[in-house]
Amino acid sequence: MYVIQNSELPRAALPGIEHVTLAGSQNGLKHLSIWKQSIAPGSATPPHRHDCEEVVLIQSGNGELHIEGKVQRFGQDTTLAIPRNVPHQIINIGDGPLELVGVLSVSPVAVFFPDGQPIDLPWAS
Amino acid sequence: MYVIQNSELPRAALPGIEHVTLAGSQNGLKHLSIWKQSIAPGSATPPHRHDCEEVVLIQSGNGELHIEGKVQRFGQDTTLAIPRNVPHQIINIGDGPLELVGVLSVSPVAVFFPDGQPIDLPWAS
Repeated sequence: MYVIQNSELPRAALPGIEHVTLAGSQNGLKHLSIWKQSIAPGSATPPHRHDCEEVVLIQSGNGELHIEGKVQRFGQDTTLAIPRNVPHQIINIGDGPLELVGVLSVSPVAVFFPDGQPIDLPWAS
Repeated sequence: MYVIQNSELPRAALPGIEHVTLAGSQNGLKHLSIWKQSIAPGSATPPHRHDCEEVVLIQSGNGELHIEGKVQRFGQDTTLAIPRNVPHQIINIGDGPLELVGVLSVSPVAVFFPDGQPIDLPWAS
């Protein structure tokens, strides 16, 4: 099965975040995990880090990336490149949903709070 | 620079394929390279393989994935998961452009024809 129907994939959620894992270890991948997420207005990811690189493709909406003491704003048609193990947080500062695809360079992905405590995610990666 | 403005990135092309590298080694990444491509109606990638995993996010259009002697059709809102070193070809079989984002698990990416001959790409990855 090389072709995945996105609409048939299981949905998961954290408060304010709808999540679908588009591809990852369930497809035999070891080095890619692809997460489609919709973050509600005013909601945010927890501050977190992971032991892999991440690229975030912003599909629609407006947000802020908080990283290394800086705040960087972004909108539609932008891309975020986040180095391995650097704590970061993505916040929806717009009136509509912030739609994004998170691309991670390992699968499965272990996610941690900045202090190193593991985050127990409610989805497979 | 964690936020990349897609519209400011350099454009490249192969016959029938418009290409933008959204993120990769130019952003300090070693394990992710992200390629945004538009394939014209009737056009296709060359048959090729690469020494890394690939996930293709289909944004719009209709196409065929030729892989391991099989032909698999796909449309909008599908995802392709392609294992390392498996030769494959993506063909636009629709009336409009086939818009996709290719995610590769190394950067830079070396691409080969199925017989192992390197393909000299006109873009940085």
